[in-house]
Amino acid sequence: MSGKTLAEKLLSEKSGTDARAGDYVEADVDVAMAHDITGPLAFQTFDEVTGDDGELFAPDRTVFTIDHHAPADGVQAANNHNAVREFAAKHGAHQFDVGDGICHAVLVEEGFVGPGDLVIGADSHSTTYGGIGAFGTGVGSTDLGTALATGELWFRVPKTLRFEVDGELQDGVYAKDLILRFIGDVGFDGCTYMAAEYAGSAVESLPIHERLVLSNMAIEMGGKAGLVAPDERTESYLERQTGNEIDLGDAFVSDDDADYEAVHTYDAAALAPQVSKPSNPENAVDVTEVAGTEVDQLFVGTCTNGRYEDIKIVADILAGETIAPNVRMVVVPASKSVYQHMLGTGVFQTLTDAGAVIQSAGCGPCAGYHQGVLGDGDVCLATANRNFPGREGSMESSVYLSSPATVGASALYGEITDPREVETNRYDDTVFAEVLP
Amino acid sequence: MSGKTLAEKLLSEKSGTDARAGDYVEADVDVAMAHDITGPLAFQTFDEVTGDDGELFAPDRTVFTIDHHAPADGVQAANNHNAVREFAAKHGAHQFDVGDGICHAVLVEEGFVGPGDLVIGADSHSTTYGGIGAFGTGVGSTDLGTALATGELWFRVPKTLRFEVDGELQDGVYAKDLILRFIGDVGFDGCTYMAAEYAGSAVESLPIHERLVLSNMAIEMGGKAGLVAPDERTESYLERQTGNEIDLGDAFVSDDDADYEAVHTYDAAALAPQVSKPSNPENAVDVTEVAGTEVDQLFVGTCTNGRYEDIKIVADILAGETIAPNVRMVVVPASKSVYQHMLGTGVFQTLTDAGAVIQSAGCGPCAGYHQGVLGDGDVCLATANRNFPGREGSMESSVYLSSPATVGASALYGEITDPREVETNRYDDTVFAEVLP
Repeated sequence: MSGKTLAEKLLSEKSGTDARAGDYVEADVDVAMAHDITGPLAFQTFDEVTGDDGELFAPDRTVFTIDHHAPADGVQAANNHNAVREFAAKHGAHQFDVGDGICHAVLVEEGFVGPGDLVIGADSHSTTYGGIGAFGTGVGSTDLGTALATGELWFRVPKTLRFEVDGELQDGVYAKDLILRFIGDVGFDGCTYMAAEYAGSAVESLPIHERLVLSNMAIEMGGKAGLVAPDERTESYLERQTGNEIDLGDAFVSDDDADYEAVHTYDAAALAPQVSKPSNPENAVDVTEVAGTEVDQLFVGTCTNGRYEDIKIVADILAGETIAPNVRMVVVPASKSVYQHMLGTGVFQTLTDAGAVIQSAGCGPCAGYHQGVLGDGDVCLATANRNFPGREGSMESSVYLSSPATVGASALYGEITDPREVETNRYDDTVFAEVLP
Repeated sequence: MSGKTLAEKLLSEKSGTDARAGDYVEADVDVAMAHDITGPLAFQTFDEVTGDDGELFAPDRTVFTIDHHAPADGVQAANNHNAVREFAAKHGAHQFDVGDGICHAVLVEEGFVGPGDLVIGADSHSTTYGGIGAFGTGVGSTDLGTALATGELWFRVPKTLRFEVDGELQDGVYAKDLILRFIGDVGFDGCTYMAAEYAGSAVESLPIHERLVLSNMAIEMGGKAGLVAPDERTESYLERQTGNEIDLGDAFVSDDDADYEAVHTYDAAALAPQVSKPSNPENAVDVTEVAGTEVDQLFVGTCTNGRYEDIKIVADILAGETIAPNVRMVVVPASKSVYQHMLGTGVFQTLTDAGAVIQSAGCGPCAGYHQGVLGDGDVCLATANRNFPGREGSMESSVYLSSPATVGASALYGEITDPREVETNRYDDTVFAEVLP
């Protein structure tokens, strides 16, 4: 019998079975998460399942965030926020409020998830946690509501699609460019219900905040999870970030003879910066193909690319410069921690001096709710993860997706610009941790 | 024949007539303003009146802002923003964008209005400009659209209701407390279609940012205008702020024998901090009557009290402290200039360290559109100007109005708190101007 993939090992461990792709297993959940949109419906299910005296399976491993409509952009949003606050208080769960940040940023930064964990979130980008070697996946509110009570959930063990990248990325090319290329190659449904596994020397050399980009967008090709085998980088990142001692053990790497659905190989050095054209993340092209496209709005943020290092790359490009007069730039840090770091290091002031407007931490205009919704005919270049029709507003608007560096370069010229035409930096994991207050 | 009021003198000057209360006059407009809600309708009227080749009466004295739904909180808002941008660009008018700030803050700070000007704005709080001795008043979008073409508008010359305040305000008592008391005394319709005139030694000693609070809220008792006779303070404020030389002349003070509808007199020293209870600004009571009322949200901002000095008063109270755990605080600076000052002086960091969330400059949640809308049962204490049912969100929410100092003190305890129980500062006009970059 062949060896096991990382996904199979994770679900074997959590189900106490010899889990193989295609098996159905009942697995123990380590961490459960919901936010201000999905939480209230999950709470209803929880109350139906447990009756009035229900208890959470693990209050200390249950996290609720207020991030999608934060601050409240309507009465329904405000009522949902109150529902989250009340449920969390009643049951003793962790609760993050307006301005604390996006669920996926908070759970990683605050040390709620670790390598080997099984994390379910009532949000599709819960695949993010795979960047630190956790099996993170999105579930519906009703599944989550049940799991909040039982601490268990069934899974079909996914096949694995492996993306192997060797070599060194060019200046101006980042994990975002890699994942846009992967999605472009396999299509938006090319990894449906499979685990994407990212490996190879180029992935191993990526700092954690970059690995999280790869895992975050696994869902954009249909992935059930997006996994990077945890290593010393993961260990030192989490130790710095959380202050906890991390023991990786050696259980969480795919076996050499693991059975993959397919293996896609890449030469990192050959990859140009990528842009996904409207209106599908799979429409990835080399930036040179769309360079010169005029844009109206630039958006820096989201659970994909709203981390400190991402925003600092943009600030480095814009330092002492002014955003082109035809564009406006919205920056929404992924977490309060990122926001406070930006204030402390001057990144915040650099961006506002250049003409950006910065909102409190949260999901921002990513899903078209508020904080920079697009009108008819508006063209946006965003560090976000999705560009489906109407995603950020009008059905007549267009969204291009790229890395923060491409957004920063484009801000200077008011049109999509190859970041290799400007000086770009990249940061390792110490940048965020070392400026901790 | 009796002397003239300030309002009569202003409208005499602008109409070239001997204007007396009750007269109908056709007056020359100095400055016209509309924003992202009222602009698009005004543009339609303008186009109807002028045809396709219409020209603005004075592009350099026409100002459009994007402040009410900024950043765009929906597709309609985004389309309105684009309409403002396109009309302003086509006609060469001044245009301020997302994050630049609230119309009434921008027009004063950027030197668009001065003493003696006739300023019409398609926004009810256009009475604000009276704080620097301009006849500022709100008009409908269709009136504004016509005036954009003609530079003229008819007025019924208002009677004047005079508020005379002598003596010295207690620590912790501000212009906001005065105006809430005035509205409480005459009622929300007690000054309908009259000019409110603020005078007396206490008013004369108020710095300009405080006078603007009085004029701003004249509309909350129905006032057509809210006037303070300009003086050396006005002159030096405007010279510092705009870099222009200001010559006041002596034409803009009410005659001693002017004819007032009524004169209300106050002893400044006797005034306690005021809070207007839900759901009418006229429900003003001494703060002691409502002290202890638990609140859910605190809102610092608006065209009434979103200036640098206002926000600095709150920051002084919260420096090194943490906002009470049961409340959340939303701060929305009135202008980009205020925002940048807050960054430069550390006021920004002080507030975020205390737990406030800060949004880019604009109207914020004042009118219940976004950035902190209230849900059912939510109680808010705000530095805003209106607390009618549903103003900041749910019809089942409640809004109390107060000064920034009262909001700051209440943030410490999570309940409405008398600002005299904490140390409070007050600032003169140099505080904002002197930290200009």
